[in-house]
Amino acid sequence: MASELRTVLVVGTGLIGTSVALALRQRGVRVLLADRDQAAVRLARELGAGEEWRPAPKPGTRTSGSPVTGPTSGSSVAGQVSGGPYGEKADLAVIAVPPAHVASELLDLQRHDAAAYYTDVASVKAEPIQQAGQLGCDLSVYVASHPLAGRERSGPGAARAELFLGRPWALCPTAESSPEARAAVLRLVELCGANPVEVDAAEHDRAVAVVSHAPHVAASAVAARLADATDVALGLAGQGVRDVTRIAGGDPGLWLGILSGNAAPVADVLEAVSRDLAEAANALRALAGGDGTAGNDITHLLKRGVAGHGRIPGKHGGPAPAYGVVQVVIGDRPGQLAKLFQVCDEVGVNVEDVRLEHAPGLPLGVAEVSVRPEAAAVLSRALHERGWQVP
Amino acid sequence: MASELRTVLVVGTGLIGTSVALALRQRGVRVLLADRDQAAVRLARELGAGEEWRPAPKPGTRTSGSPVTGPTSGSSVAGQVSGGPYGEKADLAVIAVPPAHVASELLDLQRHDAAAYYTDVASVKAEPIQQAGQLGCDLSVYVASHPLAGRERSGPGAARAELFLGRPWALCPTAESSPEARAAVLRLVELCGANPVEVDAAEHDRAVAVVSHAPHVAASAVAARLADATDVALGLAGQGVRDVTRIAGGDPGLWLGILSGNAAPVADVLEAVSRDLAEAANALRALAGGDGTAGNDITHLLKRGVAGHGRIPGKHGGPAPAYGVVQVVIGDRPGQLAKLFQVCDEVGVNVEDVRLEHAPGLPLGVAEVSVRPEAAAVLSRALHERGWQVP
Repeated sequence: MASELRTVLVVGTGLIGTSVALALRQRGVRVLLADRDQAAVRLARELGAGEEWRPAPKPGTRTSGSPVTGPTSGSSVAGQVSGGPYGEKADLAVIAVPPAHVASELLDLQRHDAAAYYTDVASVKAEPIQQAGQLGCDLSVYVASHPLAGRERSGPGAARAELFLGRPWALCPTAESSPEARAAVLRLVELCGANPVEVDAAEHDRAVAVVSHAPHVAASAVAARLADATDVALGLAGQGVRDVTRIAGGDPGLWLGILSGNAAPVADVLEAVSRDLAEAANALRALAGGDGTAGNDITHLLKRGVAGHGRIPGKHGGPAPAYGVVQVVIGDRPGQLAKLFQVCDEVGVNVEDVRLEHAPGLPLGVAEVSVRPEAAAVLSRALHERGWQVP
Repeated sequence: MASELRTVLVVGTGLIGTSVALALRQRGVRVLLADRDQAAVRLARELGAGEEWRPAPKPGTRTSGSPVTGPTSGSSVAGQVSGGPYGEKADLAVIAVPPAHVASELLDLQRHDAAAYYTDVASVKAEPIQQAGQLGCDLSVYVASHPLAGRERSGPGAARAELFLGRPWALCPTAESSPEARAAVLRLVELCGANPVEVDAAEHDRAVAVVSHAPHVAASAVAARLADATDVALGLAGQGVRDVTRIAGGDPGLWLGILSGNAAPVADVLEAVSRDLAEAANALRALAGGDGTAGNDITHLLKRGVAGHGRIPGKHGGPAPAYGVVQVVIGDRPGQLAKLFQVCDEVGVNVEDVRLEHAPGLPLGVAEVSVRPEAAAVLSRALHERGWQVP
């Protein structure tokens, strides 16, 4: 079912909304932008994400210069945008606001007759859909969705058109969703370069609780220990704890909204993780007390961790391939990386991944270059021959 | 105090032992290698880490061809190495075996009069030191130590001379340690390019419980949830959960040894993390039940996480600097990275870090190039002018 999107309205110009807008602009789609925060709209517009939205006057209200009002509009973007002479109806509206505001935003947009079809991009799905039903939204023209892409940074300044390239994008149509609404949202996903995954809203929420929301809270809890730790302890921090706690740097306000909207599934996972950690602590106490069998409980948890870690799909969606890793010593000055990757190029080796391991306090580091297993020896030899330190 | 190390004996040729050996060989030190696993010694030798150790016969035992025996030698490397005509006494012995075997190894080595001074490189310090005292080791010639460097991979094949460059290396001398022993171990740390940090053994153990051991178990507990998750859930996994669980891929046997040796401090941290997660789960249940104030507990935890995360020192040991990040779209084919870094080189911009964000399923990705803040605009413009997609 071909569904052409000529004009898309993006409501909420944060990281995700602005990234959607930029992706659509790259594909030649006309994009209208709205946000409660005028500075955010302006920045998004200056980044080339589209033009400012002027909604059509709601039937029965004054035609210009005053905010549209309604029972829920006080908290919605549509309710705060000044009415104007614009009044263009979009083919699709993308609601990119915190989960708790999705339903009221949808209602106000529908009152404005702002678009033919509607979707949202919030990280939780069951509650907003349920609220939209309760508020009396027209669910036939609405398909909730969620692109699995994000960053530690937020706001339009962190947005980029490529954010969704090849990423999963969950679609959660309900029994009431029309085929046309579904086709419009599928077209959006396609234009953003993402992979559509149709999934029931409740299953979606349980899934992201496991792979995103609960891991975030766990990272926060580990990082919270660092807040109270001694300087000596921080001085002994290595790469492991950096990785574990990286996402703990995310915006607490944003995350409270996400966690609140998916409270029960996240609580289920957190309780399981909490229990595992309490049992590990008990086993360690028993070990310290001389009960050698308690080690089995620890080993069991560590092994389950290895198994779970191994199930995460690798690059390009497939199972994680066992790349060959070539380590090269590099100086921390301009030109070294260029020369390194030039050698890769010369010998026809494709770099699958690269990771810089820094040597704190020294102008030296090690680049770990991941390549196809059979290419590792080729690259190693080539680098060695050219005088690189390949340990 | 200058302490020259002409000959160093490395006992245990795993990742850390072999890396120490390789670092010493690069500095011209003669290295003798021993391990219970003959294949590991052979591999280390072939990697250029040194030559095989033949201990001197212990006074009162037969002079060749039979294992040296003693109350603890059955489980030690020194106890398993065949006596031979070699008999060279090293300036320093580096014991690189699991924490539980450090003390018995030290005892056997001292019985062989294998070295003038001794250290170990195990991840826990208080228990091995205490055990060494109980076994009657000569503690005046021993300074326990711990290089804060490691990898997910283990074994001599993963070793590299640069592993310790600029990394912290904890030294835990006791009241009995002689100045000469301390000087010998300081010289080892210097030869390996690491930064010595003197710290009390108990404080060391509490510190690494917070910044290394407990985070490992937490990562395992999060990853364990993935073992039971649906394929749909795994299909929605993003970069966040990949980072949180990366270290959970480590060898369970190795980690059981580390955790067992630091049981009480790790249990303390795990109990605190477990409690935070249980409280977060409770708060989420309360939120779901309509108690809006419960959100404060979640926010508090998330904010403590942000604060803790912010305390982790950045590259080169200093506080994490706010680098400018330039995002560039790159094709997944040879030559792209070389060209990218060539541009950096041309415009004189030093690359502080690089991270490839993959687009699963598509031959495209985004390179995030970290540079000094003032260089970001320069690089962005230069790339843009040369036709790169800089979102």
